[in-house]
Amino acid sequence: MVARTMDELVSLCKRRGFIYQSNDIYGGIKGLYDYGPMGVELKNNLKIAWWKSMIYERDDVEGLDASILSAPDVFKHSGHEDTFSDPLVDCRKCKSRFRADQLVKNSCPNCNSEDLTEPRPFNLMFKTSIGPVDDGSSYAYLRPETAQQIFTNFRNVLDSTSRTLPFGIAQIGKAFRNEITPRNFIFRVREFEQMELEFFVEPGSDNEWHKYWVDTRYNWWIDQGIDKTRIETLEVQKEELSHYSKSTVDIIYSFPHGKEELEGIANRTDFDLGSHTKNQEEFKITAKVMKNEKSTGKLAIQNLENKKWFVPYVIEPSAGVDRGVLALLNEAYKEEKIDDTNSRIVLSLKPHLSPIKAAVIPLKKNNEDLVNHAKAIKSNLQSLGMGRVMFENSGNIGKNYRRHDEIGTPLCITVDFETLEDQTVTVRDRDTMKQQRLGSEELIKYYQKYFE
Amino acid sequence: MVARTMDELVSLCKRRGFIYQSNDIYGGIKGLYDYGPMGVELKNNLKIAWWKSMIYERDDVEGLDASILSAPDVFKHSGHEDTFSDPLVDCRKCKSRFRADQLVKNSCPNCNSEDLTEPRPFNLMFKTSIGPVDDGSSYAYLRPETAQQIFTNFRNVLDSTSRTLPFGIAQIGKAFRNEITPRNFIFRVREFEQMELEFFVEPGSDNEWHKYWVDTRYNWWIDQGIDKTRIETLEVQKEELSHYSKSTVDIIYSFPHGKEELEGIANRTDFDLGSHTKNQEEFKITAKVMKNEKSTGKLAIQNLENKKWFVPYVIEPSAGVDRGVLALLNEAYKEEKIDDTNSRIVLSLKPHLSPIKAAVIPLKKNNEDLVNHAKAIKSNLQSLGMGRVMFENSGNIGKNYRRHDEIGTPLCITVDFETLEDQTVTVRDRDTMKQQRLGSEELIKYYQKYFE
Repeated sequence: MVARTMDELVSLCKRRGFIYQSNDIYGGIKGLYDYGPMGVELKNNLKIAWWKSMIYERDDVEGLDASILSAPDVFKHSGHEDTFSDPLVDCRKCKSRFRADQLVKNSCPNCNSEDLTEPRPFNLMFKTSIGPVDDGSSYAYLRPETAQQIFTNFRNVLDSTSRTLPFGIAQIGKAFRNEITPRNFIFRVREFEQMELEFFVEPGSDNEWHKYWVDTRYNWWIDQGIDKTRIETLEVQKEELSHYSKSTVDIIYSFPHGKEELEGIANRTDFDLGSHTKNQEEFKITAKVMKNEKSTGKLAIQNLENKKWFVPYVIEPSAGVDRGVLALLNEAYKEEKIDDTNSRIVLSLKPHLSPIKAAVIPLKKNNEDLVNHAKAIKSNLQSLGMGRVMFENSGNIGKNYRRHDEIGTPLCITVDFETLEDQTVTVRDRDTMKQQRLGSEELIKYYQKYFE
Repeated sequence: MVARTMDELVSLCKRRGFIYQSNDIYGGIKGLYDYGPMGVELKNNLKIAWWKSMIYERDDVEGLDASILSAPDVFKHSGHEDTFSDPLVDCRKCKSRFRADQLVKNSCPNCNSEDLTEPRPFNLMFKTSIGPVDDGSSYAYLRPETAQQIFTNFRNVLDSTSRTLPFGIAQIGKAFRNEITPRNFIFRVREFEQMELEFFVEPGSDNEWHKYWVDTRYNWWIDQGIDKTRIETLEVQKEELSHYSKSTVDIIYSFPHGKEELEGIANRTDFDLGSHTKNQEEFKITAKVMKNEKSTGKLAIQNLENKKWFVPYVIEPSAGVDRGVLALLNEAYKEEKIDDTNSRIVLSLKPHLSPIKAAVIPLKKNNEDLVNHAKAIKSNLQSLGMGRVMFENSGNIGKNYRRHDEIGTPLCITVDFETLEDQTVTVRDRDTMKQQRLGSEELIKYYQKYFE
């Protein structure tokens, strides 16, 4: 069903408290968004689902949460300082700037002048002065990806756990890119969140693990509610591969603005650990950015049989949280005819992703008995630990149903005067709109079963 | 019991994977830390406990997750651009810089020269160029606190929910301060996380709500496992109040380095919404930073009876996540004598905060039956949704007990040959070190009860 246009999603997101333009009372800054009351729950639920599947439900992955501010040496030796850039062109007439690869004609898209500079590289990393001296000598980068801190912490994690290959380190966190032209709502932004796994393996087993992770990640997105007709894997052509990659498969989703990358799974070989390790010459690494005279870390592991030290290969499934949220919102969005004159918008999110699991609504706003009863039910369901349950005190059932359809609440529970007599409540299902009457113990069981 | 010195905590944190110095293989940057496999779980558990108590278990608070990069206008009108600074002094001889308020004698702490500049204000906000033009015209701040984005989103949240006073907006997220002298491990750092609630109330009811939130927050920290002997509330003296505050109470914890603020609860009156609203002259606001000619947002609410618009007052409980982690680690740290020759370090964290809820350990590493059985139990307990359960495959029970005592795992479950016959396992309790033999159904019940 999905949304017909991105505008439909943007409008729903603002109206129902999923996503707002950041700093909007001051005119906003392009490419920055704030997650509202419903958005923060949806985003957190998606991150929790990833974390569970990556760490809790496996026995070979550890978690990490590293700092955003990073020493310049990290991004010098990762290759970002030299190569993480877009080609930028200046118009000599109107002084506007734009990406050379987005020029459709040889003229300025702003004033049509053909007096343009040659393209020059524009580094996408944000930089900030750190410490009390602001003379450019002491600065940090805002990380443009979370991956590098996983590599620089490789020994720390190894030394404080007792891992052997294969094993992974997973991280969720913010990353920042000074995009020249942020666009397509939360798809291409300047501040975003990533869910990245670096999975370290023996060289030689890398092709097999790469295939494993492509399959695993594809299936995970299906489990989150993405329909198979709108998601596909795409092997990146050799000539388009990033410099660090031996092979990359993208998971492509049909966003409202077109087919684009939701997640990429790359075989990065020993490029990263090799680039960040000291004594590179001691290991037979196959790839690196440059000679490393700064690192004090030996990012290698010992073969327990022949006692030789070697640098592991790494498979990286790297997903965008915000892109995931956008895909899931699009996927869940439905406009449905109810009858000849009425329609409704409903967000058919999978229950584990819904911002609100159930709304408990007293039929009348000011009736103390109904309100107390509803609050008790809310509190009871809340204590089952399945996520946020909402007590709705507007006294307008129709309006509540409309709202909770649009934010994707699976169950609406109404407390009426009958409830006060026999403890039964009306439970309405978001997707079928069917209502049923349940007793208080039945309700608990129904709720638990629904969300398990 | 607590740690005797900060060094004991620092050492445990590195050894067991709680906290590492950030960028350490490149020499590190002061005031930046990375959370390792155990640290990220502890920190997440603390944040989840806060989020639950603030949003899920109440009916009057909504969540938010706003961007870190912020338009300069936000921090101009909040007062931060002009006043969020420390007094800085330069030594003319050796060129070092330090905080004037930390000078103990009138001489440079580095070279003892008395040729010092007058103190001048040094703004603590990190700044970064945004967009393709790097001429200083277009920049953003890394927010120094999460609170301001709650204020700037006041109307967005109000318009997309159906809130009336009193209600709150809660947020957890990173904030950044360019501290001149970061110190005391994760206590005073340059990148940190905050848990902030802005609770909007009718003017006149603010003193009562302020008291309510001081009590609520104090009790919450006790619930997280802080002993009453090491925590106190302290009313900030009138002359030491921040410019925005009518009254502030700090929650003070006895950290290893001294008594310092863990959380502050401020009555910020209408200062913030008043400062960020358009048409300030239309409301009888009592405090503001300056006249606001930039804001397009009417940050006010309508009195439903007399229809008049007014700017609410706000009570702000603002807690540091990292300081919370430090306090809880300190609080849980114990060195215990086991017998005349042996002692152990144990982290007696409350179960809901423990990074690992249970370790499942096969008695022998390479026995397929034991390993499969242990994996099945791990997977079973994991599915109960109480947090991370770990499958431990080292084959060294004593080493595992030591490790899990130090990371605060409440239960260690050993699978041995008897298990293969009668399904019973040995369950060892972290705190009492007592072991008991439980059948498979008893284990599930025991586990559920333990973590409820």
